[in-house]
Amino acid sequence: MANRKLLLLPGDGIGPEAMGEVRHIIAHMNEAEGAGFEIDEGLVGGAAYDAHGESISDADMEKALAADAVLFGAVGGPKWDDVPYEQRPEAGLLRLRKDLALFANLRPAICYPALADSSSLRKDVVEGLDILILRELTGGVYFGEPKEIIDLGNGQKRGIDTQVYDTYEIERIAAMAFELARTRDNRVCSMEKRNVMKSGVLWNEVVTATHKKGYEDVELTHMLADAGGMQLVRWPKQFDVIVTDNLFGDMLSDVAAMLTGSLGMLPSASLGAPDETTGKRKALYEPVHGSAPDIAGTGAANPIAMIASFAMCMRYSFEMIAEADRLEAAIAKVLDDGLRTGDIMSDGMTKVGTTEMGAAVLEAY
Amino acid sequence: MANRKLLLLPGDGIGPEAMGEVRHIIAHMNEAEGAGFEIDEGLVGGAAYDAHGESISDADMEKALAADAVLFGAVGGPKWDDVPYEQRPEAGLLRLRKDLALFANLRPAICYPALADSSSLRKDVVEGLDILILRELTGGVYFGEPKEIIDLGNGQKRGIDTQVYDTYEIERIAAMAFELARTRDNRVCSMEKRNVMKSGVLWNEVVTATHKKGYEDVELTHMLADAGGMQLVRWPKQFDVIVTDNLFGDMLSDVAAMLTGSLGMLPSASLGAPDETTGKRKALYEPVHGSAPDIAGTGAANPIAMIASFAMCMRYSFEMIAEADRLEAAIAKVLDDGLRTGDIMSDGMTKVGTTEMGAAVLEAY
Ligand SMILES: CC(C)[C@H](C(=O)O)[C@@H](O)C(=O)O
Ligand SMILES: CC(C)[C@H](C(=O)O)[C@@H](O)C(=O)O
Repeated sequence: MANRKLLLLPGDGIGPEAMGEVRHIIAHMNEAEGAGFEIDEGLVGGAAYDAHGESISDADMEKALAADAVLFGAVGGPKWDDVPYEQRPEAGLLRLRKDLALFANLRPAICYPALADSSSLRKDVVEGLDILILRELTGGVYFGEPKEIIDLGNGQKRGIDTQVYDTYEIERIAAMAFELARTRDNRVCSMEKRNVMKSGVLWNEVVTATHKKGYEDVELTHMLADAGGMQLVRWPKQFDVIVTDNLFGDMLSDVAAMLTGSLGMLPSASLGAPDETTGKRKALYEPVHGSAPDIAGTGAANPIAMIASFAMCMRYSFEMIAEADRLEAAIAKVLDDGLRTGDIMSDGMTKVGTTEMGAAVLEAY
Repeated sequence: MANRKLLLLPGDGIGPEAMGEVRHIIAHMNEAEGAGFEIDEGLVGGAAYDAHGESISDADMEKALAADAVLFGAVGGPKWDDVPYEQRPEAGLLRLRKDLALFANLRPAICYPALADSSSLRKDVVEGLDILILRELTGGVYFGEPKEIIDLGNGQKRGIDTQVYDTYEIERIAAMAFELARTRDNRVCSMEKRNVMKSGVLWNEVVTATHKKGYEDVELTHMLADAGGMQLVRWPKQFDVIVTDNLFGDMLSDVAAMLTGSLGMLPSASLGAPDETTGKRKALYEPVHGSAPDIAGTGAANPIAMIASFAMCMRYSFEMIAEADRLEAAIAKVLDDGLRTGDIMSDGMTKVGTTEMGAAVLEAY
């Protein structure tokens, strides 16, 4: 068993530190289990801009297209705040999503039992929480044209962004939501603002129609996205799978992540359509937290979200289900043992840094 | 003192019940204090559609334009789910906002001390919370063109919405944010997604420029809107005034409202620019909660948000500061006395219905 081609894009801020811990785990798997991961590496975000003036180079995009899966750290930081718009760190991530056609972004919001106390929500509201936000990732206002600033003269400018969704884009993400729901509690809640947006009207219509095409065993409900935000705060356990568009998904998944008190723990997967001949999906795995420039380089970053992203990678890209389960169990164990990085520290626990946490997870694996 | 012209638009669901309680308070003020409120009434939302096939009639729009202030209940409900898009209940509210040019939406998120326990957040996170979300209300994706669904043939449709912001629209809402901040804790946080949206780039630029034009005594910070949603959940007390666009404001103010555990208590004000000759602003006051069709007609609705909206109306449209203060104190008193409608009921409190709650507030006034 060999040739599992991984591209590592550590990026900026705490990205490289967190990725370092995944590197140790991969090395262990290759040595001790013959997992056959073949690692390549590239630059993205501010690091790529500093090296060659672009947020990702064509050469690294080629590597990403050739890899079985991409592991992505984080991008951005104040250092690049004044970089031109097209070269800003985030553009590298957006290009990866678009060029790899990663239309489905899976963001589990799980409250680790050991961490229920570190949420800002009441313990009974979040304890045992396990929901999945499925965000459409290659459409909507992120990529629609026109997207520009026009000079109108008289000191006036006009900023324009365009939200665009076609039927097929909504259909494929809805179908994926129903399929994922079947592996969970079999319930999907679709969110949009059909009372204000025409794309929301179409979204609602297509999700409803897709449901009728062979998914009627799954429970489907609809909610306005603003009410959805409220309900996430009020009683998040009412949800199983939430499916929503790119921008609402960005907002709602961040709110959901914060509910869990486990932001530094949450992974995500971005998947493309299955290849017509090989059946394989392009994929990128990424922690939900950002680059956290304030603590970058201090050795304080929590590597768990990055490690959990690698677990998702084994599960979805390589069908290494047993290994993924073991790695996730290892994370839960070190938490049960009381190890905490600064972001999740609480009374009576043992405070550790990035490398100790990574080593402890590998030890428990 | 006479001729304070109010237009009441109770709308749908619990709107009319809640408005009924405000009517009693107004009658009392006219009789006991000679407040001189002159009341007219109209239909909006589903009620207007049922009466004459439109979500608000031209005649009622005329009344709204002629009034000093509009009191608005709520619109919508499952009964009108299949009404054509242009006639849907929400269209009436959107037309009012647009035709009255109500560009500034003030949404205070306050945690009433008596209710800190009914929040889903930990008490220490929300107790004493007092933030103000200032939402731009007549621009952005709500009104930008094109806004349409195109039939592409082959069974494919395309839904399009357009986010548009001009410099002057951002300037005036930013200026209002700084002015409001000066009456509070003197801090403004502006939220957009400049890392993805060109309108966000312009927003950030114009808010920063406006700050330099005479508002540098106010502290200004910027946050990405998704991070803003997270921070609202994590530690909302870090904010004073948040200024943001129409769609982000819709989402973020709903999340903020739910944090307080006081959704049934929160008012809002929507204001236009001062008239060039009279200096008066057009204004609409509205509870943050919706039409709650599930409890409409049962006498269980909480009228406090509607009453608090009337207090805001006295404060902002009629400079009746003392009366507004007294009415708000009356609300706090009935809560301290343990009176609760179903939505905020908790152990040991006295459960009351809409009319009892309204009467108790009037009694305490
Ligand atoms: C970095 C940024 C472009 C990105 C987004 O807005 O999608 C991030 O917030 C995310 O959620 O992955
Ligand atoms: C009813 C609806 C059109 C409205 C909005 O989206 O603005 C509501 O959600 C609000 O926040 O006032």
